[in-house]
Amino acid sequence: MAWQLHFFHFLFLILLTFSATPNASQCSIKGLPLVRNISQLPQDNYGIQGLSHITVAGAVLHGMKEVEVWLQTFSPGSRTPIHRHSCEEVFIVLKGSGTLYLASSSDGKYPGNPLEHSIFSNSTFHIAVNDAHQVWNTNEHEDLQVLVIISRPPIKVFIYDDWFMPHIAAKLKFPFLWDEQCLQVQAPPKDEL
Amino acid sequence: MAWQLHFFHFLFLILLTFSATPNASQCSIKGLPLVRNISQLPQDNYGIQGLSHITVAGAVLHGMKEVEVWLQTFSPGSRTPIHRHSCEEVFIVLKGSGTLYLASSSDGKYPGNPLEHSIFSNSTFHIAVNDAHQVWNTNEHEDLQVLVIISRPPIKVFIYDDWFMPHIAAKLKFPFLWDEQCLQVQAPPKDEL
Repeated sequence: MAWQLHFFHFLFLILLTFSATPNASQCSIKGLPLVRNISQLPQDNYGIQGLSHITVAGAVLHGMKEVEVWLQTFSPGSRTPIHRHSCEEVFIVLKGSGTLYLASSSDGKYPGNPLEHSIFSNSTFHIAVNDAHQVWNTNEHEDLQVLVIISRPPIKVFIYDDWFMPHIAAKLKFPFLWDEQCLQVQAPPKDEL
Repeated sequence: MAWQLHFFHFLFLILLTFSATPNASQCSIKGLPLVRNISQLPQDNYGIQGLSHITVAGAVLHGMKEVEVWLQTFSPGSRTPIHRHSCEEVFIVLKGSGTLYLASSSDGKYPGNPLEHSIFSNSTFHIAVNDAHQVWNTNEHEDLQVLVIISRPPIKVFIYDDWFMPHIAAKLKFPFLWDEQCLQVQAPPKDEL
């Protein structure tokens, strides 16, 4: 039986070796197919209730340098935090409807009361650099699905507790949730407002 | 009858005044609604047979500075020219299928024989800065619809007659077709390869 024990011991070590480095292969951009099936890309809520996030083309996962694309679905009632980021952002609403809350003046000390904009299927809108905003699926009956495009990836998000929190008090989240697993943080980024 | 003639003369002058300045209002980004219905945005083939192009969010039309988004439909057999541009580009195939021809080495003096990649509905791929490429609807039975994202807008396109034309001989087209009407060219851009 000794050889069997040795064999299982060997097998165990092999399995341990491979299971200890799943992230390395998951995060490597080497050998990625050029054309990728979006429905086979990793999908997760990254701890945000009601969210489904897919990084379609990303800095961390796919080596993008200037743009990044996400496919996100918000279940009824779910929403982004109130936040800002120093990049441009374009939304394309693929399905459902909801509300964009936008405080477009970053001149003040805090965002202030946002304007409400209805968003709907086959609509598009963009958020200027550093404008505080929140996207909310206010439709009780349907998922809200959006394609999101950002510049200057990977994203650095500054999160507000409410619309009257001072800009300088907003909390930096970097790397952001979907980049956490793979991004090697080289140096802490500066507050860019 | 004199008053009627005067009236029609007056009406004619009014119409002439408004019809003489359609571009100015069409090209102004002032007063654009923040949330826009994509199906109501201008759509044209811009002289390319089999193409339908919509600028969803653009530098020239909507004041974008870092990213630009297009919705394009290629009828069966239609295609882009062989071209390169010094920006990143992401494609998302919404409908149909086709072929991406990509010569990814910009080290040589000309693109050379491209690799062929099948593209299909719900797939994504990206083109690195300055890689010569061509997207072709090689499906005889169906339109190919893609969402295209570029960085560094407005786009400057260098067009090749064939895959063996030297990079330095590729012809610059700037402003590109859909930007021609509205873009004020301030200074001729440099060849950026």
